[in-house]
Amino acid sequence: MNYPGRIGKLQAKLRRKKIDALLVSQPENRRYLSGYQGGDHGIGETSGVLIILSSGPVYLLTDFRYRLQAEKDVPWATVLIYRKGLLKLLTGLLPELKVSSLGFESHYTLHSTAIKMQDRLAKKGVMLVPTVELIEKMRIIKDEEEIECIRASVRLNEDVFQEIFPAISKKQSEIEVALAIESLMRRKGAESASFDSIVATGKNGSLPHAVPGTDHIKPNRGLTIDMGLILRGYCSDMTRNFVPGKAGKKYIKLHRLVRKAQLSGMEGIRAGVTGREVDRKARGIIEAAGYGSNFGHGLGHGVGLAVHEEPRLSPLSGKKLKAGMIVTVEPGIYIPGWGGIRLENMVVVRRDGYENLNSDMTWLDI
Amino acid sequence: MNYPGRIGKLQAKLRRKKIDALLVSQPENRRYLSGYQGGDHGIGETSGVLIILSSGPVYLLTDFRYRLQAEKDVPWATVLIYRKGLLKLLTGLLPELKVSSLGFESHYTLHSTAIKMQDRLAKKGVMLVPTVELIEKMRIIKDEEEIECIRASVRLNEDVFQEIFPAISKKQSEIEVALAIESLMRRKGAESASFDSIVATGKNGSLPHAVPGTDHIKPNRGLTIDMGLILRGYCSDMTRNFVPGKAGKKYIKLHRLVRKAQLSGMEGIRAGVTGREVDRKARGIIEAAGYGSNFGHGLGHGVGLAVHEEPRLSPLSGKKLKAGMIVTVEPGIYIPGWGGIRLENMVVVRRDGYENLNSDMTWLDI
Repeated sequence: MNYPGRIGKLQAKLRRKKIDALLVSQPENRRYLSGYQGGDHGIGETSGVLIILSSGPVYLLTDFRYRLQAEKDVPWATVLIYRKGLLKLLTGLLPELKVSSLGFESHYTLHSTAIKMQDRLAKKGVMLVPTVELIEKMRIIKDEEEIECIRASVRLNEDVFQEIFPAISKKQSEIEVALAIESLMRRKGAESASFDSIVATGKNGSLPHAVPGTDHIKPNRGLTIDMGLILRGYCSDMTRNFVPGKAGKKYIKLHRLVRKAQLSGMEGIRAGVTGREVDRKARGIIEAAGYGSNFGHGLGHGVGLAVHEEPRLSPLSGKKLKAGMIVTVEPGIYIPGWGGIRLENMVVVRRDGYENLNSDMTWLDI
Repeated sequence: MNYPGRIGKLQAKLRRKKIDALLVSQPENRRYLSGYQGGDHGIGETSGVLIILSSGPVYLLTDFRYRLQAEKDVPWATVLIYRKGLLKLLTGLLPELKVSSLGFESHYTLHSTAIKMQDRLAKKGVMLVPTVELIEKMRIIKDEEEIECIRASVRLNEDVFQEIFPAISKKQSEIEVALAIESLMRRKGAESASFDSIVATGKNGSLPHAVPGTDHIKPNRGLTIDMGLILRGYCSDMTRNFVPGKAGKKYIKLHRLVRKAQLSGMEGIRAGVTGREVDRKARGIIEAAGYGSNFGHGLGHGVGLAVHEEPRLSPLSGKKLKAGMIVTVEPGIYIPGWGGIRLENMVVVRRDGYENLNSDMTWLDI
């Protein structure tokens, strides 16, 4: 990956904003700029941060536990270990590096942490400057190397689905299917799942974010599988619906309706249209059939190093799509007590249209 | 669980602090107060928040996707759905509830979110008050019902380990062992693993937070397994080290040293001593043997609804332990290029000593 290019672009931004350095704490941003793969235990327990000077070398600050990983992943950065906490290291390091204004990621820093840093760094003559999504704004447009990574992630995810799908039976519980999926992902080389897989049988499908349980797969009832994996850092995300056994009339009618909405949404995608316009195209079809109130989420979201990122396709997103963005298109209909149907593909926004990254057609055109 | 008692205690705190209501966003705090099991996608994508009035009913605010889950888990709360974002709902609801000061969890709210809330709520006459760890301070002492849950979580975790352990062979890769562990956890009824299992063979064990890879288990070399699960919300966490095959002299010497340090740390635990004192007892033994610089992390951490919580046993923790706290005791020695050894048990702090929650003795007394 083009880490020097990304860092150079960010450094130019920092110079324009007159910030001497940026503290990068957001894990995907950290990976985007450096390839560092250390894993955090949530926002409170970081595996390290980057310090990007507006010009000069890159520092990776971490604790003892991640030293070898840091040195292995980012051999070109200066790795510094904090023994008494990050803040203590920063209060020594920043004056040494002549940093008098330090940007931080306001959208990935706890309020209490920011307040404490502000107080302590002020005493050293360092001003803390909140920034929002400087690096996310770079990540939102994917270059062809990234698109190829995501394409490979989607392909592997489909391979896993296609190997699991024919073996699904009523002998399995939702959890067992989910475990089989996640285990096959890892065996096939994924770093991990990109989110906890959703396997929802029958009426459980009416919760868009259902957690797999001990219910066995119900024959002749809808089954929703929403799964994704991470390959070389990049995420995939796909949802399929089908009926193990014989599908009822209502199921087929609604499945076709959701598919029609999905195709209409996909057809609406090209550089220059807003997320709202794309959402409207798909939602209009579901509303016209009388199911508008059963589609309570946005049509799609960006996917990249994070499985949920900008841009959004939703009634609230007025921003225009640009070439190189990657989004999901996933309309759904959820009926409490009956079940739900959601169909999700990933597409690349292109100048004059879209590129569908999925080739799996399971049950899409019933 | 005694949700009304917990909420009553928190409400009394709020009245003492003259805060009309508290917005609870931290997932384990939310679960502690209500039993709500909705899962978040990181801090940026919540599955809902609680509003605890200083007196009055409890509100659970969430979006469409989690409505059924919220109503199922917390039937005694008023569930409200936000369609245009949480902040929009709050600006309407808070004046209606006559809330003029709203506490928020400064330690689990993004800096950017807090700033935006502050601006928007000020216009409605609502003052935002940062609070820090009000509920965590309640969670740190476990009642006997919670201790029983954690005991069951530890026991199930040991069951999983003991079933996996005899079958480990050089035919398996680290990833395959990790998957076997996590899959058995779920089949035996765990909600999930409490963290990504660590399976580290040979020199990989020198990274305390090693990520399982495709290396096959090396015969006659140390193997570190660090694993934990979540059962009814409560976490377990255990590390064992052993050698599949014949252990070398150095391995046995260091394993015994780490075990000696662990026993010494455990023996040092009772209500009234500081985390630092306990850490010192174990660390002193490792230092005396000349391996002080190879033990670069704290001796232990609290475990409860979160797998890493207060209190800490470390050179930095000056606070006194209290009866009902639960901590890990996990000294380690890490030697780059050779490997590592870490032994981790969980204990309850009691008035006059400690209760070891682990009964697994695998390789502890070689």
